[in-house]
Amino acid sequence: MSTTTDVTPSGRAFISDNMAGASPEIAQAVATAAAGHVPPYGNDPFTEGARRRLSETFERDVDVFLVSTGSAANCLGLAALTRPWGSVLCHPDSHINTDECGAPEFFTDGAKLVTVPGDDSKIDADALQQAARHRAGDVHSVQPSVVSISQATESGSVYTLDEIRRLATVAKGAGLRVHMDGARFANAMDHLGCTPAEMTWKAGVEVLSFGATKNGAMTADAIISFDPALATELAFRAKRAGQLASKMRFHAAQLDAYLTDGLWLRNARQANAMATLLGDGLKAIPGTELRGSPQANILFCRLPRQATEGLLAEGYTFYHHRWAPGIVRFVTSFSHTPDDIDQLLDAVRRHTR
Amino acid sequence: MSTTTDVTPSGRAFISDNMAGASPEIAQAVATAAAGHVPPYGNDPFTEGARRRLSETFERDVDVFLVSTGSAANCLGLAALTRPWGSVLCHPDSHINTDECGAPEFFTDGAKLVTVPGDDSKIDADALQQAARHRAGDVHSVQPSVVSISQATESGSVYTLDEIRRLATVAKGAGLRVHMDGARFANAMDHLGCTPAEMTWKAGVEVLSFGATKNGAMTADAIISFDPALATELAFRAKRAGQLASKMRFHAAQLDAYLTDGLWLRNARQANAMATLLGDGLKAIPGTELRGSPQANILFCRLPRQATEGLLAEGYTFYHHRWAPGIVRFVTSFSHTPDDIDQLLDAVRRHTR
Amino acid sequence: MSTTTDVTPSGRAFISDNMAGASPEIAQAVATAAAGHVPPYGNDPFTEGARRRLSETFERDVDVFLVSTGSAANCLGLAALTRPWGSVLCHPDSHINTDECGAPEFFTDGAKLVTVPGDDSKIDADALQQAARHRAGDVHSVQPSVVSISQATESGSVYTLDEIRRLATVAKGAGLRVHMDGARFANAMDHLGCTPAEMTWKAGVEVLSFGATKNGAMTADAIISFDPALATELAFRAKRAGQLASKMRFHAAQLDAYLTDGLWLRNARQANAMATLLGDGLKAIPGTELRGSPQANILFCRLPRQATEGLLAEGYTFYHHRWAPGIVRFVTSFSHTPDDIDQLLDAVRRHTR
Amino acid sequence: MSTTTDVTPSGRAFISDNMAGASPEIAQAVATAAAGHVPPYGNDPFTEGARRRLSETFERDVDVFLVSTGSAANCLGLAALTRPWGSVLCHPDSHINTDECGAPEFFTDGAKLVTVPGDDSKIDADALQQAARHRAGDVHSVQPSVVSISQATESGSVYTLDEIRRLATVAKGAGLRVHMDGARFANAMDHLGCTPAEMTWKAGVEVLSFGATKNGAMTADAIISFDPALATELAFRAKRAGQLASKMRFHAAQLDAYLTDGLWLRNARQANAMATLLGDGLKAIPGTELRGSPQANILFCRLPRQATEGLLAEGYTFYHHRWAPGIVRFVTSFSHTPDDIDQLLDAVRRHTR
Repeated sequence: MSTTTDVTPSGRAFISDNMAGASPEIAQAVATAAAGHVPPYGNDPFTEGARRRLSETFERDVDVFLVSTGSAANCLGLAALTRPWGSVLCHPDSHINTDECGAPEFFTDGAKLVTVPGDDSKIDADALQQAARHRAGDVHSVQPSVVSISQATESGSVYTLDEIRRLATVAKGAGLRVHMDGARFANAMDHLGCTPAEMTWKAGVEVLSFGATKNGAMTADAIISFDPALATELAFRAKRAGQLASKMRFHAAQLDAYLTDGLWLRNARQANAMATLLGDGLKAIPGTELRGSPQANILFCRLPRQATEGLLAEGYTFYHHRWAPGIVRFVTSFSHTPDDIDQLLDAVRRHTR
Repeated sequence: MSTTTDVTPSGRAFISDNMAGASPEIAQAVATAAAGHVPPYGNDPFTEGARRRLSETFERDVDVFLVSTGSAANCLGLAALTRPWGSVLCHPDSHINTDECGAPEFFTDGAKLVTVPGDDSKIDADALQQAARHRAGDVHSVQPSVVSISQATESGSVYTLDEIRRLATVAKGAGLRVHMDGARFANAMDHLGCTPAEMTWKAGVEVLSFGATKNGAMTADAIISFDPALATELAFRAKRAGQLASKMRFHAAQLDAYLTDGLWLRNARQANAMATLLGDGLKAIPGTELRGSPQANILFCRLPRQATEGLLAEGYTFYHHRWAPGIVRFVTSFSHTPDDIDQLLDAVRRHTR
Repeated sequence: MSTTTDVTPSGRAFISDNMAGASPEIAQAVATAAAGHVPPYGNDPFTEGARRRLSETFERDVDVFLVSTGSAANCLGLAALTRPWGSVLCHPDSHINTDECGAPEFFTDGAKLVTVPGDDSKIDADALQQAARHRAGDVHSVQPSVVSISQATESGSVYTLDEIRRLATVAKGAGLRVHMDGARFANAMDHLGCTPAEMTWKAGVEVLSFGATKNGAMTADAIISFDPALATELAFRAKRAGQLASKMRFHAAQLDAYLTDGLWLRNARQANAMATLLGDGLKAIPGTELRGSPQANILFCRLPRQATEGLLAEGYTFYHHRWAPGIVRFVTSFSHTPDDIDQLLDAVRRHTR
Repeated sequence: MSTTTDVTPSGRAFISDNMAGASPEIAQAVATAAAGHVPPYGNDPFTEGARRRLSETFERDVDVFLVSTGSAANCLGLAALTRPWGSVLCHPDSHINTDECGAPEFFTDGAKLVTVPGDDSKIDADALQQAARHRAGDVHSVQPSVVSISQATESGSVYTLDEIRRLATVAKGAGLRVHMDGARFANAMDHLGCTPAEMTWKAGVEVLSFGATKNGAMTADAIISFDPALATELAFRAKRAGQLASKMRFHAAQLDAYLTDGLWLRNARQANAMATLLGDGLKAIPGTELRGSPQANILFCRLPRQATEGLLAEGYTFYHHRWAPGIVRFVTSFSHTPDDIDQLLDAVRRHTR
């Protein structure tokens, strides 16, 4: 396994938004939660508070399951939406398809991921239309059961509300459930300028992975179910998967602070703004070329080889060897400043000269 | 599901040691870790530091996998020690057998727990001798593959080093692996006055769930493997089970502070001392009766019905309806003070008069 | 693995009823089915015929899934009746608990078998009453989901209709489903002198493993579901488990012949009669002692050591080392004759003198 | 589910080779095996005989596991060759990928199928070279673990010995195991004119699904392992999956007869010859067009719409709606005669005029 232990100069970390630490407000909330006795396993006022706040955020009662990773959030959510002989329709670029080491198969007791293509890492509705009915009722084939939408996507694009609605309509028309991987939920929302409700249940989403970790929390994401019929199954599956934390208050405190006074939106706005700054700057540099349609906090671009090498030599960290030759990825986070971006752009300029 | 949200008056919380919050040192360490950029998924200096410190603690190189719950620690460890057609030999009272909602079966891809009796929630070596060879080689039966020892046990007793060695010898003689559920590892160590190494690999333990959460951490336990051959499997299983945290530093910071300056031992000593204080006090109260051999921070005792009711009415929380009628359980933690115990004893006295 | 390849002198085979071959009528039916072209995967007239005949046999429409082993029949049936976080309540002696190498755990995606005691290998209704509600609704515990009844039991006893009805009533009162392992269904029916309907759905059974292999068929058992809501799940599970045979006609032909002209009842009657003959004979031999309440075609008894050894030396085969010392098991089948039994009794007499 | 029960006029059945019944020699062997008492679960002389005969056939000692379907053979074999976090590399057209309803995921405890392209349904060696090392050692990704080759393929093509050797060399160079789905093993061998050993272990195959059902047997296929280290795992997995038949003799008798006096080769030769006859005839009919490179007993071709409809109206059965419009599939078997083919060709001619 690759287990190099690097220390990255602050401000030069663009591997992923998970290189950032946590917002001070969240660190503070966790420290505050450390005092006092409360019942374990989520039967505590912190968890109740987080649940209430999430219900307010989504403008309706929601079922909430706090978990320690986005992997667990996605896979538990999917497990509640498909039987083992079902298939999960997802984009080839989706994190669940490429970066989970079979976790979806594990949590779903062996369901199958089936990919559906589309530009900019977004599932194409017409392709979904076909895939959603593929061999339905044929006992020799896995049965299309759920579509999983990444919002924002893994390449930084964002589904419009219309696009989500259309996919959900197609899915439901074929009897499928609708799942959203919201590891970068706030970043997408910031781009669209919409409400959480509009981007989820009002558009047809039934289970959401509400990501907080990448956007300023520490180790807490939430499964949010808009279908009360799923609550029991989700509760048992979460327990059985080792995700019913005894001191749940520490997950809850993170979520609570995250949603307080708009911290989550500020963080996302900052991350997105830094990506825009970076994108605009890169566009102006001859020899570099932006890829796809970056709308959130992820940028793919083509860099000259000497630029990539020069940046690495200066201590910049980013993925550069996973895709086509010359293609690199930069992910910005709430922790980046305009100064950080300026310095990065300056370095790119220097190395592409 | 039972989801009552109680607030327990501080100092009256005896349901479990997980009602306590976190040690200030650990809260501080987490807050400190929140700043700066480090690589994700455990390739960071915090995780490296925790690994180094654990190796020092155990006086040898160990493989470390930080996870968010003891459930995950136990079940991932077991999954690396048995194939799906194997059986895990454990005590009927063991947490994995009674309180995990089938998590061991889930993580092991369907292995079977087989119980082996013994007094005081401890596996009897002679009974293990028989169980370890039960239908070995018979394709119609699950194959005894691993023995799991809870140290301290679920009823507060502690295996002596001799007892662990004997079980491990029996197990290995029959080709079984040896697992230790150390959710209350420090409490057991405090009772025995031995070193971590003596209580584990020197006694034959191969994989350990090193509990920190119940003893002052927040949401971090560690799988510690003394067999390097298991490292790859554990790494993939942890990832696949949603336990490879992207911001692993926050688990690591907890472990690091936990092991710094003997915090973990101080916490355990305090919890144990409070249990002893409580036990001694209860023994002196006519009408109450201690059960088993409490040696760590768990006490079972028989209380008169009016005492149980009186305590509950005063806001005391503890388990009282899960075992034989009249039997209650008190669990102390680092967060209890002699004053808390005195008040509890006083209340018992008042209600048993 | 134990893989001795013995040839047992005909008539001296008492290990199990599966030592018998197949009834000539069934062999003939299979040979006849070998000719001609029919659609695969059960969409053929043979399978349709078997389904019709089973519906007639059970006096109602039933869903039928033909499988190649009783293991598959039991485990697929159970998988349709419990979720992975459920428990299957069964007797400690039950085949699914002792002789399936974890197959129930595999097919159910990790559900847990929980044993419920009772005399003569039969589940006690009062014990079931307790077990059926054990920690219901508690997310930390597997949830009682289905009770599995072996009829006839693994020790040769037979539940009365009243006993089945009582267990089913208790189960349903607690929200559990009712499964019957009918590996020796016909033997039980012969003993009770009742109809198939009376012993199953009229008594509350929802899914039945209808055994044919042990009673004169070759490699064919049937899952019979009395709950139409389970048909889709059973179909997908059977396919996914490799049990949707392409040339299903060969399973169907066995079942059809089995049910034609009362063959199955004649076979069971013969097996039971031989067991009665053997039991009566053994009772009259000083030094031997019958165990339990043999009512079908299985007998447990205590034999003097020299008798066991003498029988083995003469080429008799039977289980003799699996239970308490001195306890042996004889299983009779349709293929045994009064002459076979007389010779066995004569041998026991000679060796106990 | 699609459960139409058709009766197909003999000789007009081209849906699959599993529409044929069984060879008379096999029916006779099964009937003969019905008499007498033998030990159950494969410890009988029939099974020993089949094992010996298969060892002779493959010119070396092999481990043999007789199962009731090709699905079970493939999936158990794969389960022994990959861990749950592994991937099975296979062609997009492979039966395990398209027609098993997730059975491979079920049997492997959640491993992932990853497709590797290539012409004529054959895996391309260069593509395999890349796929076999895809993210090896990266804990975020499933690990390439085994390549599965269908011989003959699902579109009727046959790998040459050189092609198999090349794929095996590439696979082993990257640390992968080699599996062969030999549902139509004999058909491929007949085409190549090689020995069983040459087409398997001498070319690098480690586990083979040795298909018999489609080529004249009833309900019996064999897993053949050329790696003795896998025997124990395969035995436990087969039992656990409900594939250790109690009356194994009936599977064994089929295999034995199948391999006696070259029956299997005669059957395959007949099926292949009929396909060649049909292919040659179709080529000569204007308006039809053969697809791919039919070398075994499967033919894909383009038929005019009125031809397809005309054939269906005459009672011919074949797949015609699963692929591109106008594409139909004919599968011949040992049971077809030159007369059957002539009549089919005549019908095509009549309907394409």
